[in-house]
This record gives sequence, C-alpha cells and structure tokens, in this order.
Amino acid sequence: ARPRVGYFYTGKTGSQLLTEKIKKIKVHEFQSLPVVVQESASVYDAITTMFLEDVGTLFIVDEKSKLAGVVSRKDLLRASLGQQNLNQIPVNIIMTRMPNVAVCYKDDHLIEVARQLIERQIDAMPVVEKIDNDGFEVIGRVTKTNITKALVDLAVDELI
Amino acid sequence: ARPRVGYFYTGKTGSQLLTEKIKKIKVHEFQSLPVVVQESASVYDAITTMFLEDVGTLFIVDEKSKLAGVVSRKDLLRASLGQQNLNQIPVNIIMTRMPNVAVCYKDDHLIEVARQLIERQIDAMPVVEKIDNDGFEVIGRVTKTNITKALVDLAVDELI
Repeated sequence: ARPRVGYFYTGKTGSQLLTEKIKKIKVHEFQSLPVVVQESASVYDAITTMFLEDVGTLFIVDEKSKLAGVVSRKDLLRASLGQQNLNQIPVNIIMTRMPNVAVCYKDDHLIEVARQLIERQIDAMPVVEKIDNDGFEVIGRVTKTNITKALVDLAVDELI
Repeated sequence: ARPRVGYFYTGKTGSQLLTEKIKKIKVHEFQSLPVVVQESASVYDAITTMFLEDVGTLFIVDEKSKLAGVVSRKDLLRASLGQQNLNQIPVNIIMTRMPNVAVCYKDDHLIEVARQLIERQIDAMPVVEKIDNDGFEVIGRVTKTNITKALVDLAVDELI
C-alpha cells in the first residue's frame, strides 16, 4: 500500500499525544550535577561555595557522603543577617535536615518532580541513589532551571 | 460520510501539534503579581520585603513608579556579607539598572521568555507596559516557577 501522507492513526487526539510526551520525560534527561558541602563546613564556606558554583541550592552531606540536608539561598541570606560570626556556625545548624528533604531518582518522571517543586515551594531537589538501605547518595540535582530547559526543548523538538 | 473514529487529518504530526501548542502560550496566562521597591529604600528594607513577600526577585522603581532596576536574592546575599550598615545603603547602589534589565510584555510568548531566562541566567523578568514612550511601568513578573507551572498544566490539559 502507498503511504498516505498527512494521515496517521493513533486512536489518540493531538492533545493526548502532547500530554503523553511530556509525561514520558525522565529526570536523568535534564538533571544537573549536584553541588555538595560537608555538614561540618561553616555557613561562610557554604555561601562562598554557592557563589563559586553559581547555584541556588546546596546539598549537605555527612562524613560518609550521605545526604544530611539542604540549604537554599534564602536560608543563607537569613543566616547572614544575624549578628553571629558566619565562620563559626556550622551549616548543619541552618539546613533543612533529613528526613524532611524531598528526593527523587533518575528514572522518576520529570513532571512529577516539577509538580513537587511547585507544591513544596522549593527551587531544587536532589537526585539520589539508596546506599545499602541506609540513607542516600546524591548523584544529581533538578531545579526549576532544568524544568524551564525541558519546556524550551519541547518547543523545538520535531521528533516524537 | 460517516465519521471515521480514530482517524484525523491535520497534515501535522503529534509532535508538531505539541510544539505549536507550547508556542501559543502567552505571558499573561502564567504571570504573577510583581513585588516592587522604591529605589530610595535601603538594602535592609529590600531584604525584609523579599522575605515578607517570599519572592526571589524585586523590581526597583523610581519616584514616578518607572522601572529603574532589578535586585535578586543573590545580589542581597552579596550585599549582606559586606561590613556596611544595610540600613544606610540605598538599594539602587546594588541593583542591575536599566537599560540592562530584560523585560517582556503580557502578549509575548511564554516560550520566548523561558528561552531568555535560560540564556541570560536570570530567575525572573518583569512584565511591563510602556509609559508615554518614556520608560516602563511594571505590571507583572514571570519566573522559572511560572514556567514550571506551565509545564505541569500542559501535562494535565486534555483539550487543545
């Protein structure tokens, strides 16, 4: 049979195809490298790292490189307004600590992470792997910047 | 002729429909309210406003409510590390000033704003209206949070 150009059969509407395409995107397709800081580091060191690496969120790890918490630019701004010496406050005093940190896996759907960033009003989530059923190793980060890039990519992508 | 269920003709692939749908979204469909601060306000007042309003970017206006500049959480964190008295530094000393501020209009395409946020490495852009050919009034803001919401909405929207 000759191909019938311009016709195609899917049993689905264009809108459903769109929805499905977005839902199929995995975290690992858009994740960035994580920036981590030891929990014993000072708030001052954390701020320096944030500027050097130009990120909005730092992941804090313990001496075994296990995820211990998260620090945002907002947390650091709040701390810097205090009258204390930022060199003498360890960053684990001001971090949001486990288990109150939302995490995701590289094979999760990006749209689910996007939904959680909105719901929890956070800017970033660590991409983790389980360590022997005891805690998480941080292997990446997903931010609203990554989500924005995904939307930009969808608008230029001509292939399903 | 009987309707042929499951077939439809558009001359376009599902991917093109997706691309077109994304390209059609306008800024005003997802913009938020702007948070503005007078340029004579102190850096300390700006930080307070940022925490009270819980935003990552402030738009700075002059005495005629004309857009004068932009201040990010990063700018405020940098300023707070200095040894000066934050009550005595006006925010217009540390802002990115016009004409170096990227702006957009409510009828612009959201995807173009998304592309610029990525390219310029900024978190937010003011939505403006021209004032008598002399400067801009700020009527909204578009952030990476708004773009993330747009992607989440696209994934649940079943209508074209």
